[in-house]
Amino acid sequence: MTVLDPFDALPRGERPMSAADDASHAAKPVAGGGLLHRRVLLRRSLVLAAATPAAMVGREARAADLQALEPPATMRTPGRPFSNYGQPSSHERAVIRSIAANRVVPGNGVSWTPLEDLEGMLTPSGLHFERHHNGVPDIDPAQHELLIHGLVRQPLRFSVNDLLQYPMRSHLIFIECGGNSNAGWHSRPMQRPLGSVHGMVSCSEWTGVPVSALLAEAGVDATARWVIAEGADAVAMNVSLPLAKLLDDCIVALYQNGERLRPEHGYPMRLVTPGWEGVLNVKWLHRLQLAEQPVMARNETAKYTELMPDGRARMFTFVMDAKSLITSPSHGQRLRGPDVYEIRGLAWSGRGRIRRVEVSADGGANWAEAALQAPVLPRCLTRFRAAWRWDGRAAVLKSRATDETGYVQPEREVLLQQRGKNGYFHYNAIVSWAVDAQGGVRHVYA
Amino acid sequence: MTVLDPFDALPRGERPMSAADDASHAAKPVAGGGLLHRRVLLRRSLVLAAATPAAMVGREARAADLQALEPPATMRTPGRPFSNYGQPSSHERAVIRSIAANRVVPGNGVSWTPLEDLEGMLTPSGLHFERHHNGVPDIDPAQHELLIHGLVRQPLRFSVNDLLQYPMRSHLIFIECGGNSNAGWHSRPMQRPLGSVHGMVSCSEWTGVPVSALLAEAGVDATARWVIAEGADAVAMNVSLPLAKLLDDCIVALYQNGERLRPEHGYPMRLVTPGWEGVLNVKWLHRLQLAEQPVMARNETAKYTELMPDGRARMFTFVMDAKSLITSPSHGQRLRGPDVYEIRGLAWSGRGRIRRVEVSADGGANWAEAALQAPVLPRCLTRFRAAWRWDGRAAVLKSRATDETGYVQPEREVLLQQRGKNGYFHYNAIVSWAVDAQGGVRHVYA
Repeated sequence: MTVLDPFDALPRGERPMSAADDASHAAKPVAGGGLLHRRVLLRRSLVLAAATPAAMVGREARAADLQALEPPATMRTPGRPFSNYGQPSSHERAVIRSIAANRVVPGNGVSWTPLEDLEGMLTPSGLHFERHHNGVPDIDPAQHELLIHGLVRQPLRFSVNDLLQYPMRSHLIFIECGGNSNAGWHSRPMQRPLGSVHGMVSCSEWTGVPVSALLAEAGVDATARWVIAEGADAVAMNVSLPLAKLLDDCIVALYQNGERLRPEHGYPMRLVTPGWEGVLNVKWLHRLQLAEQPVMARNETAKYTELMPDGRARMFTFVMDAKSLITSPSHGQRLRGPDVYEIRGLAWSGRGRIRRVEVSADGGANWAEAALQAPVLPRCLTRFRAAWRWDGRAAVLKSRATDETGYVQPEREVLLQQRGKNGYFHYNAIVSWAVDAQGGVRHVYA
Repeated sequence: MTVLDPFDALPRGERPMSAADDASHAAKPVAGGGLLHRRVLLRRSLVLAAATPAAMVGREARAADLQALEPPATMRTPGRPFSNYGQPSSHERAVIRSIAANRVVPGNGVSWTPLEDLEGMLTPSGLHFERHHNGVPDIDPAQHELLIHGLVRQPLRFSVNDLLQYPMRSHLIFIECGGNSNAGWHSRPMQRPLGSVHGMVSCSEWTGVPVSALLAEAGVDATARWVIAEGADAVAMNVSLPLAKLLDDCIVALYQNGERLRPEHGYPMRLVTPGWEGVLNVKWLHRLQLAEQPVMARNETAKYTELMPDGRARMFTFVMDAKSLITSPSHGQRLRGPDVYEIRGLAWSGRGRIRRVEVSADGGANWAEAALQAPVLPRCLTRFRAAWRWDGRAAVLKSRATDETGYVQPEREVLLQQRGKNGYFHYNAIVSWAVDAQGGVRHVYA
């Protein structure tokens, strides 16, 4: 595994101008299809010089005529005042969640994270994907309570202020909807931007009270095996979870990315189940009922199950398996011409850390290992990067994640063989982008 | 160092109800003044049972009368629709940056992060502190360019789109203003909420292009030792940095917490200098000039320097030393009565990782080691937690950080001995909160 230590962009003390002899090494392919050693991009001008002497300065940087420069207008007038709560630049208005809502059921639908517009591993809370079944309730935190009942010694109620008195834990993790990428089950590849196909995955720091501390207080009956979690929205969204998971690492989250939860992410409290399906991270949590059996709710029977080739249904498919996506280049983007590119993407696994991401530029015939951006955290989005020289000919880009359990993200045909053609959830196959000779990028099955 | 693995809130498979024998151990003090083993808070009901049998259920949780419960109103009406870009709950309107702006110079001042209202290690971008000298410029990214000139082979210009073609790196780090906590130099302790005294520190993931890659392209002259960075704001904010730092780990950031920079944090590009004074992280960056000597700008001579007891001034005090703050309880808060509390706080160091945080509940006579929330990252905010039983008598709480270099955060009197009474910048002494018999908390020098 090559981890990009952010404090090691270049070896310490090394002066970039003295490294000409490094260029030929860096520019040597590490796999077919033009995949290069990652240092090539840090030696950009040198590599370009080696490859095309005329392009010494590169296409990106332009020689500056110092005589012609004058200070921009912003340096002549005082700027805007301070603000109590900041917002994105008006020039970034196009970077939004795209919405697909049901016309019949109010507030039933999805809004996607625009993954193709983001960099790093975090998702700003305002762009964290939404999946609601009946809209976003407006909850007064002073009126809201969490009830713990069922197979307990003593049913208990907890207000927000009560929970604030308990010890807290933080989870810096992804949450992914079990239905993310479900267009992958279609017979033809969906021709849409990355985020509106695969953008039901986002990454936040969630902080709250370990469920184990609350259950200890209620006293768990020895016969309890399941916990039924219910939200305070109009659909009374509910699911069943094994008690062991709740005792292991689940929290009742009050904070997201430092501040209190946003309304659409469960304000004032949300169950967070690291590495497991998004639907289990019940928003607007108001009830945990301990039971011997699951409740067999709509969203664990009619939905969030999978009809297998033999006619039986997979149920309680909790964990999100390893997956990766190349975010740049990706569908709908256009390469500016033959050049050296940084292939950028995200990888994650509900079973722990990402151990390795490989990329291919020739449709999977050859693979090269991408560098992973530190920190590589368990059950968290991990940014990967690889250097690629595009020669201007048609190419197919793929990425393949391996997690710390050794699980390898499958090719699409392998996933279809295993799960059949009735799939809707848990699509985690390798995603392929075809680059044509004009630099156009589109989604393909390859 | 005790690190709280978020996936290890309780040992795996352990059922909280079976752990009664653990309570007496957990409730044993680990230092004077009521500091307890951290497991006490995960065993809350058991400890309360051991300590005060009548309080078996605890003050926080209330026994639930299941007959009396009815679904909240939010479960009877569909909620609000999806949104393209989310905002905080209207019930959290009070959680804002507080502003202190100069009445004479437009846009000169500060807005503070409300640290006392936040949890976890991240700061939402909307609450990241601001320190501007002449307001926030509104920059059209299509018009903005970064110029690299001076002692280079070829002066170069880079637009935002140019920079997007370069390799990127992410830094998940704190930025702290060199003037943060400067009220600590006053002869009397400032009686204000934590954030409006110490809130010029925030934590984000910054992603952008290593400066080393850009300098490699321009070609650094062998005589260059310093780089003068200038912003495109109306004050033409500029500072000098050693070239070695820029080659080491600095980036031209384009993204903050996943999305493009916010206007007040440098949109469209900002110099990020991990672990170094906030003022060096030049916002709205439009110029890097390589030179043999520093430029001796206003903000490295008249300001951001420190007059020492011998009459000489400390200059170029780049690195932010180790520091910690107890965020809860903190000034202005009120304890609800004798009980077990979680002491919560933040620690950080510009020199690397936090190795240890100790807390004292008796004014520094005795210290106990706090647990650190994983991940503990270099030059990043680190959340710490400790369990404390307050017996209802007056107490003084302190925290003390040690970083991986072995540097220990000093007591205030030690800092004053070293630096004299003309200090204004780099105040990193131990902060003390006095708890009175009524549970009131106030800032003291102790």
